Amino acid sequence: MKVVLYELVGKDDHRFSPYAWRSRLALAHKGLEATYEPCRLTDKDKIAFSQQERVPVLKDGDTVVPDSWAIACYLEDHYPDRPSLFGGPVGRGVARVVNAAADTQLIPAMARLILGDVFATIDPADREYFRKTREPRFGVTIEAIAAGRDSQRQPWLNALGPFRLVLKEQPFLSGTAPAYADYILFGTFQWARCTSPYPLLDRDDPIYAWREKMLDLFGGMGRKAKGYPVG
Amino acid sequence: MKVVLYELVGKDDHRFSPYAWRSRLALAHKGLEATYEPCRLTDKDKIAFSQQERVPVLKDGDTVVPDSWAIACYLEDHYPDRPSLFGGPVGRGVARVVNAAADTQLIPAMARLILGDVFATIDPADREYFRKTREPRFGVTIEAIAAGRDSQRQPWLNALGPFRLVLKEQPFLSGTAPAYADYILFGTFQWARCTSPYPLLDRDDPIYAWREKMLDLFGGMGRKAKGYPVG
Repeated sequence: MKVVLYELVGKDDHRFSPYAWRSRLALAHKGLEATYEPCRLTDKDKIAFSQQERVPVLKDGDTVVPDSWAIACYLEDHYPDRPSLFGGPVGRGVARVVNAAADTQLIPAMARLILGDVFATIDPADREYFRKTREPRFGVTIEAIAAGRDSQRQPWLNALGPFRLVLKEQPFLSGTAPAYADYILFGTFQWARCTSPYPLLDRDDPIYAWREKMLDLFGGMGRKAKGYPVG
Repeated sequence: MKVVLYELVGKDDHRFSPYAWRSRLALAHKGLEATYEPCRLTDKDKIAFSQQERVPVLKDGDTVVPDSWAIACYLEDHYPDRPSLFGGPVGRGVARVVNAAADTQLIPAMARLILGDVFATIDPADREYFRKTREPRFGVTIEAIAAGRDSQRQPWLNALGPFRLVLKEQPFLSGTAPAYADYILFGTFQWARCTSPYPLLDRDDPIYAWREKMLDLFGGMGRKAKGYPVG
């Protein structure tokens, strides 16, 4: 039986959640076939079985796992004979630092560049909910964020500093081959790729070359996603 | 034959380098006895054998290794049968992200709180060199940094955000037991402990409790260091 990932969907079937992308890559890394069940932000009924209100949610037989970090840990523990996402308990511990840095630093910094485009990409039925929940986080309107984004590109590039330094020295965050820490960072970039044409990286940035390699993984899974091929 | 770590020394034998502390803990983790050779910032002759000008430098028989990250990798590769610093290649890859975050985000943020105290702790013979090399990095005098530090405490606490989030959920950055990623963050705190009484953390911060555990490791190695017991 295939596992099912319930994930955010926008208009025209854009699948842009940075968290769902972490889970998508983790499933592919484990070689698990999955079906993807689209949910709008306001489709809370569709995931009521998970007893919480946020996607992604993984359903594997009778097991229900919400939250991308918990999903990665579940896959690692439940499918231990398949390629490891963390390379062991120390690697899992430290990957959580990358997860927390993406959640608290990278996603907010990226939001200041693409939130207007994300708003334009969500399903029209979700717009009111999106505005009501997101604007208080930033203290300004979505339109004000969109208008000011050019001034926020340098802070975004600065927030990537540690990742850039590492990718100058080694091919992937996880060393010589990609693993979950890479999927965390890549998921963040897929959020943009699937919603926004805004240029997020300079071509000579080591992160740009890494992202190209990540887009090629698993038969070009990330590259084929509905979105904007540059940026 | 014991390994030798050449490390920075201040006045009254204060050993405060955040990078040397990473190496000190790594040596203890590997169960290696070491001697510590103090070097002032301007004692470039003393480490001329390493063909570069920065401490820490590790000397293990005929092998000479400068740079704390390279030292950790050397110890891991050369003493593979002793407790692992990284838990494997994926863990090593991802620990480098923590290393880069400490170097580019945490140390500069902490410097804005303690640089005046560091200046007061270095050997008087190093003061001119220290001022000449550090002030251009900040674009202001050491005294101006010291005078403005209270306004920089919140940015420092914000920079710790990802680490705080992780340490709310698990005992160490490396999972259930400390490893090199923890030594990186702890080394940063030892820089402050050995130079400054400034309070860096609130007592209810999960990082505070983690730091207490780290101070107890290896017979209280960090706690016994010459410095300031609170902060």
